[in-house]
Amino acid sequence: MSTYLIIIFISLVLALFFILFLIKFIFTQEKGSEQMQNISNAIKEGAMAFMKRQYKTIFSLALVTVVLIVIANYFGNLSKGGNSAFKYSSHIGIAFITGALCSALSGYIGMYMAVNSNIRAAAGAKKGLNTALTIALRGGAVTGLAVTSLSLLGVTILFLLYGGISGNDALIKEAPSLLVGFGFGASFVALFAQLGGGIYTKAADVGADLVGKVEAGIPEDDPRNPAVIADLVGDNVGDCAGRGADLFESTAAENIGAMILGVALYPVFGWKGILFPLVTGAIGIISSVIGLFFVKADENTDNPMSALYKGYLVTTILNLIALFFIVKSMFSGILPNGTSINYVYLYLCAFTGIVVSYMFVLITDYYTSYKYRPVKSIAEASKTGPATNIIAGISVGMESTALPVLLVSAAIFTAYKLGELTLIGVSNGGLYGIAIATIGMLSTCAYILAMDTFGPITDNAGGIVEMSGAPDEIRLITDKLDACGNTTKALTKGYAIGSAALATFLLFFAYLEQVKTILGKPLDSWFAVDIGKTQVFIGAFLGAMVVFLFTSTAIRSVGKAAQYVILEVRRQLKDIPGILEGKSKPDYATCVDIVTKGALKEMILPGLIPITAPIVVGVILGKEAAAGFLLVCTITGVVMALFLNNGGGAWDNAKKFIELGNLGGKKSETHKGAVVGDTVGDPFKDTAGPSLHVLIKLITTLTLVLVSLFS
Amino acid sequence: MSTYLIIIFISLVLALFFILFLIKFIFTQEKGSEQMQNISNAIKEGAMAFMKRQYKTIFSLALVTVVLIVIANYFGNLSKGGNSAFKYSSHIGIAFITGALCSALSGYIGMYMAVNSNIRAAAGAKKGLNTALTIALRGGAVTGLAVTSLSLLGVTILFLLYGGISGNDALIKEAPSLLVGFGFGASFVALFAQLGGGIYTKAADVGADLVGKVEAGIPEDDPRNPAVIADLVGDNVGDCAGRGADLFESTAAENIGAMILGVALYPVFGWKGILFPLVTGAIGIISSVIGLFFVKADENTDNPMSALYKGYLVTTILNLIALFFIVKSMFSGILPNGTSINYVYLYLCAFTGIVVSYMFVLITDYYTSYKYRPVKSIAEASKTGPATNIIAGISVGMESTALPVLLVSAAIFTAYKLGELTLIGVSNGGLYGIAIATIGMLSTCAYILAMDTFGPITDNAGGIVEMSGAPDEIRLITDKLDACGNTTKALTKGYAIGSAALATFLLFFAYLEQVKTILGKPLDSWFAVDIGKTQVFIGAFLGAMVVFLFTSTAIRSVGKAAQYVILEVRRQLKDIPGILEGKSKPDYATCVDIVTKGALKEMILPGLIPITAPIVVGVILGKEAAAGFLLVCTITGVVMALFLNNGGGAWDNAKKFIELGNLGGKKSETHKGAVVGDTVGDPFKDTAGPSLHVLIKLITTLTLVLVSLFS
Repeated sequence: MSTYLIIIFISLVLALFFILFLIKFIFTQEKGSEQMQNISNAIKEGAMAFMKRQYKTIFSLALVTVVLIVIANYFGNLSKGGNSAFKYSSHIGIAFITGALCSALSGYIGMYMAVNSNIRAAAGAKKGLNTALTIALRGGAVTGLAVTSLSLLGVTILFLLYGGISGNDALIKEAPSLLVGFGFGASFVALFAQLGGGIYTKAADVGADLVGKVEAGIPEDDPRNPAVIADLVGDNVGDCAGRGADLFESTAAENIGAMILGVALYPVFGWKGILFPLVTGAIGIISSVIGLFFVKADENTDNPMSALYKGYLVTTILNLIALFFIVKSMFSGILPNGTSINYVYLYLCAFTGIVVSYMFVLITDYYTSYKYRPVKSIAEASKTGPATNIIAGISVGMESTALPVLLVSAAIFTAYKLGELTLIGVSNGGLYGIAIATIGMLSTCAYILAMDTFGPITDNAGGIVEMSGAPDEIRLITDKLDACGNTTKALTKGYAIGSAALATFLLFFAYLEQVKTILGKPLDSWFAVDIGKTQVFIGAFLGAMVVFLFTSTAIRSVGKAAQYVILEVRRQLKDIPGILEGKSKPDYATCVDIVTKGALKEMILPGLIPITAPIVVGVILGKEAAAGFLLVCTITGVVMALFLNNGGGAWDNAKKFIELGNLGGKKSETHKGAVVGDTVGDPFKDTAGPSLHVLIKLITTLTLVLVSLFS
Repeated sequence: MSTYLIIIFISLVLALFFILFLIKFIFTQEKGSEQMQNISNAIKEGAMAFMKRQYKTIFSLALVTVVLIVIANYFGNLSKGGNSAFKYSSHIGIAFITGALCSALSGYIGMYMAVNSNIRAAAGAKKGLNTALTIALRGGAVTGLAVTSLSLLGVTILFLLYGGISGNDALIKEAPSLLVGFGFGASFVALFAQLGGGIYTKAADVGADLVGKVEAGIPEDDPRNPAVIADLVGDNVGDCAGRGADLFESTAAENIGAMILGVALYPVFGWKGILFPLVTGAIGIISSVIGLFFVKADENTDNPMSALYKGYLVTTILNLIALFFIVKSMFSGILPNGTSINYVYLYLCAFTGIVVSYMFVLITDYYTSYKYRPVKSIAEASKTGPATNIIAGISVGMESTALPVLLVSAAIFTAYKLGELTLIGVSNGGLYGIAIATIGMLSTCAYILAMDTFGPITDNAGGIVEMSGAPDEIRLITDKLDACGNTTKALTKGYAIGSAALATFLLFFAYLEQVKTILGKPLDSWFAVDIGKTQVFIGAFLGAMVVFLFTSTAIRSVGKAAQYVILEVRRQLKDIPGILEGKSKPDYATCVDIVTKGALKEMILPGLIPITAPIVVGVILGKEAAAGFLLVCTITGVVMALFLNNGGGAWDNAKKFIELGNLGGKKSETHKGAVVGDTVGDPFKDTAGPSLHVLIKLITTLTLVLVSLFS
């Protein structure tokens, strides 16, 4: 075990040094003109103030939650004796708090780096494309590495503390189920972070646009708009903080789900099956660090994306090579039937996972880029007005769910068969194949996350350049980077939902494993949840409904919060004379304050739905109904998230396609129709869609944590 | 058995005489001015021409299908011996053809009565509100009674022919599973009828509006619009023919599902458990006939709805009383544990079903009527333009899924518990409770269908009055009836999806029963479909995806077909001089012809999805995966249909609310925003939504028919 633990800790130390190096690099860059700094400081202040208040709210809710789950687990495990129940429940509680804190820290780091990198990227654009690109990507890389390292560190340390190195079989096997608390804590914070951030960013955006652009007729990112700073703050709190927490809990959930399935294979692999996900995570961190060094854009390129793709390719190839040796060294052994394990098949599972992540990126690109039929058909439909634009967009969004579902189904099928073929006679062998595929898919996570956070940094850099009235050649550079950032954001969203689908699949089976353990069934038996039972049907029915209800409330929250902004912007334009003439400065801070309050208020209701629903189903209808609920909630959640993300992305780019001068270009009637679609798509792709990723994992980890409670 | 068969045949004879009486009544009414007759004849011709061509297409597809299912069933049952396999497969084939023909006939009757009643209702409006109302309702009543009687007749006769009166236990028990072919045939025709009709009606509507109202600036239903006749034809082919086939297959599916579950209870109830759904259907027909006599509107009323409600109430009360005696007389017996059956509990199941149908109507009313918060919030959101209108509508539509799902879940739970409480120690006892509840819910079907078909008749009557330039006082009457028709249409849609949810629930369990029979398991055992198996998960995943994909293609088909209309209307306005000045007549027939061709072409792709998907899943992944597919497809289909129907209805009425003079009234910016929502909602509520009801039953009956084929 020690060799593998050393690999993990080497990767963490490496990540730490590299993060420090990147931070030093960024903070030694120029900060640009005073005007740029003023704008940047306003963004920084607003973002940090929002985060502080958001975390206060989230942690008040978390405190109540941790008390409840500790009590529930104490009484749920009382049959094992008072001491044992106390130990079990307190361990879960500690794991929850650790997970919640790490998740919050991930979000904080993402935000902190973003608000400090944007100004430097904006200033760097003066020196050239490559400098700006490097600063933005390195800012993103800090987040990517910090999030994945924190997840790895947290899970590894808790695993060790909870008996992972005790050498005691029973303790080693119990440890992963205690870690579920960690996953739940992470999901808990991530859900509210995504919701609060998502509502904030879109409410500010819609509010700024509706009053500023439509009513007052001033352009986007114009300093005369009182909501403009709130809008820029929104990009950070929604995309950086929210997504950081989201991917933190994704990696945590995947690790924990795979570890629980590893427990089921304990008779074959021993602790190696449990430790494998963590070792792979370590490898992923190392290869991402190397990949990041390979990113260098040609100074005169039109498409900085290719530079980012190069780094991604390097990371992937390194991972593919390293994974082969890891699989070979960890999964050698003798099967119950006496033959030795064919590790090549298991390696192919990991390979499948990596192929899936590539395919997901390609499919997302097809449905959201204006080079292809779907987005073009939306742009075309805008010619007959907003109604046909909306119908076309909804149709494209719903269609876009088909290929990803087929892809994930094929991957699950393949990995399952490969696992079964290898682990002959081992129950759950096929499932472990799927676990390995998921681990493969998430192995490039650190690099993907760096690309993802790159997006809002360039977006903000563009905003700062625009607001400070910088010369055209600098704008050209930030515009290029901004377009590139939009692409990475769309692609990583595809990746996020794909990996979430696989991760929850693992967690779903982990749930069935847990139930088995609680029912005292042997680890290598099946726990059958019969869909022919009425309560399972009802649970399943409610699972689909919860996804629709959550989406409804999340979307509505944006509308409500936007109303506050609209009223405030109108008030300022009326009460403060000379704003529109540029003679007096609008009161940015009040706008920021109002969106903050609005977003925090409106995030509560949608956030409570996924927390209460599984408890109600589990307590009233029992364990099997909870399984039905989980199954359909996960499935519908994934499909709905695909619809919302891709639909929103497609509307966005249909508008951009027209703005490039096609079908009449900017200010044509066609463009007006497309703007409506873009606005509708905003809460789809930036609020409800990304929150659904988290929701499905939250519901699963919550159910896992409370399983002992369900009748 | 003979007593009950006599009741069934008495009800059928009564229905026949009453239908003849109604037809005579309608055809002896005045047909109005020559101008009105010309318009009406044009609608009639267009509708009949569409129907003829549509049925040609559908029956070509049906012919291929019947050959395939007969072959599949022959080889699937070959293990029983060649003769037996031949008999089984040919019986299923004959049932399919009978079901398909009856479904087509139902659609034809619905359409025929509608196109002949609309002109007479328009002419009747001259005499007063009550005359017009009576004509429209009686036109609808013919459809309602014909559809329910045909369904009852078809199922009863096939049941008797297939051994229902043979006295041979084995034959009696096999007969219901052969009837599944009948249900599949009905669903097959209904799906294409709904799709073709739904695409036709909305393509004509959107096409007429976009060029006529928006581009040329002429009002709705104006004779100068070349697509105006096509638009009126659409109301008939979409709402009358489509819905007639839809409710035909709903009642058939419910009867067959309940009969299969009755087979499972054969040891307790004998043939009575199988015959019960048919007897209840007969009672429902009789009480609906009586209820229809009670409808009489006050001549000066503002709200003719109350007259319709009175008839509904009478029908319901008569049903409640009759059901008590039926349940008492059919479900007396001795349980395995020696106690006698508590028929009062079983009666409460039927009562639950009737309560559910009332609640469904109330919930639908809440979400789609402008008296309440949801529709008002959409109207309110239109103040800030089409984007916020769309966001609000989608949010309301998604929210509206929650209460119906909770309601159905509660009903299933209650009926199951009541069934279990009564039929102690009888496996499937709880399920039979749910079957009785479903039967209760559908017992008022004939009356509901009469109200439903009433809608398009009044709609067309209004159109004819408008186009023929009738005086204002007549318009006032038809406007009142039209508003009333919109309400009944929305309410019956709620009823349709509610009953579809329960009916497919029955069919889902019937599928599990069938699998059990094929696997040779005893009838009172469980067939467990374990959601913990990977293939079940994949099947379930694909089930959700198919619903999204189907919705996407159905919506897109409307857009494509509308394009044909738009081009043709533009061409006529350009090529035929003097149309807009009213000097020359547009070429209505070509428009009708073009929509017909377009709708028939575009209905194929969405129609093929639900036919191929379950076969692929079943053949490749097996019986259990097919069960997972069914489960999630049903659930997601119901929730999606609720979203589409209620969302579409809410948008429609938000627009109407503004048109009544609220929030700025007609031609305000707010109204423009609301018009966009209404247009988006059209394919939701009139094409995709109603087709989804049929889709979920089609998929289930198809799977049931092919179950012997699945690995």
